[in-house]
Amino acid sequence: MHRFKITELGKNAFWLRGDERDHLVRVLRLAPGDDIVGFDNSGAEYYATILKIEDKSVTCRILETSHPDVEANTKIYLAVGLSKGEKMEWVIQKGTELGISGVIPLRAKRAVMRLEGTKALERVKRWQKIAGEAAKQSHRVQEPQIFEVADWSDLPKLLPANTQWLIPYEEEKTERLQTVLDRFDPLLPMALIIGPEGGFEAAEVSWAQEYLGAASVSLGPRILRAETAALAAATMVLAHYGDLG
Amino acid sequence: MHRFKITELGKNAFWLRGDERDHLVRVLRLAPGDDIVGFDNSGAEYYATILKIEDKSVTCRILETSHPDVEANTKIYLAVGLSKGEKMEWVIQKGTELGISGVIPLRAKRAVMRLEGTKALERVKRWQKIAGEAAKQSHRVQEPQIFEVADWSDLPKLLPANTQWLIPYEEEKTERLQTVLDRFDPLLPMALIIGPEGGFEAAEVSWAQEYLGAASVSLGPRILRAETAALAAATMVLAHYGDLG
Repeated sequence: MHRFKITELGKNAFWLRGDERDHLVRVLRLAPGDDIVGFDNSGAEYYATILKIEDKSVTCRILETSHPDVEANTKIYLAVGLSKGEKMEWVIQKGTELGISGVIPLRAKRAVMRLEGTKALERVKRWQKIAGEAAKQSHRVQEPQIFEVADWSDLPKLLPANTQWLIPYEEEKTERLQTVLDRFDPLLPMALIIGPEGGFEAAEVSWAQEYLGAASVSLGPRILRAETAALAAATMVLAHYGDLG
Repeated sequence: MHRFKITELGKNAFWLRGDERDHLVRVLRLAPGDDIVGFDNSGAEYYATILKIEDKSVTCRILETSHPDVEANTKIYLAVGLSKGEKMEWVIQKGTELGISGVIPLRAKRAVMRLEGTKALERVKRWQKIAGEAAKQSHRVQEPQIFEVADWSDLPKLLPANTQWLIPYEEEKTERLQTVLDRFDPLLPMALIIGPEGGFEAAEVSWAQEYLGAASVSLGPRILRAETAALAAATMVLAHYGDLG
């Protein structure tokens, strides 16, 4: 059953416009009488039938509303140092399948990829689309938010003040991820700061510890690539609180 | 420091031949006097200096031997349904970074990719190289083994008889991965059977349960792509027994 993000929700109906409408009509070629599933990031899922297809919108009649227990209870954000090639897309796509709540693309010092101005805005738009498609594929009812490309100094403002920050760091030899997770409160948001391919500079880690109260942790004895670290960390945090596995 | 898989180990020296020798000489252009690290899949690591470079070999004098605690204690194998494109490579590369012990490419019923005869042998060789490079990158001292492409009926013969099998399965609604892991013995090998993109047929899962004693488990409420499932499952099993995070 095809899934769509609702543009406008009514009492017994909803409407799809823009890209969602176009995808339904031109790509999937669905027609009145076909059934679909709509979601609107509120946690609800609407099983519906297509009533009417028009130039700019599709009208659907809601047959049944449900609140599937498919979203993670713990809100986990990834602040990811900009990486080249498809790595950001990969982390966004698979992070969404796993169950994260958002991704903040971060201008870490050693990031090879530079992203500013309009190029940054366009890239964020594309990443948001990828998150949207991955959310549909995994049957989620909430699409993770892809934030504007941020600098370190932006981080405290982007997430709630009670966010618990974690920074997996190769140089961290003593504090293990699991130990820190035992201390954290799963009812409060968590954010994992993942380095770019070149890793973090010591000054960046110190800054995160001082200004975000970030706990620097080891992910284990083996060196992980940036994108592997992102997904492994997200998986372990979600699993620790029962949101995966 | 560059890492190499040792071809021949002596008392106070070791030799690199074949691809390892060529990579050192032609690509990295190292010379006598340069220091390198050698490993030989026994768990030992040899800090050495290059003595002599010849047409077919490189002689290195061992300065120091160590046994870094970098390998996972629990031996985890992935039997992965053949997937198209680069997915097998990703799973092998990232699975190696995470710490798995081997990968069995599996001819699952719904696998889109068909692999037989010489083509299969060549592909396995290439996958073994990928595992080798990833092992070096993560500073492992043991390279995971990539097995020959296997059918379901081969599986019982490929791993020790006391292997504990797990099959993450979308249709499994009750048994959770973590519950099964609490029952398993981390001192015995474990094998996770991951489906191809189309998932498993019910008959395949039943076969695994009957002939491998496999426990079918849920990885959580969200649908994961095949390669995401492979890495998430491997991460969760390794983390459960303290080998990650």
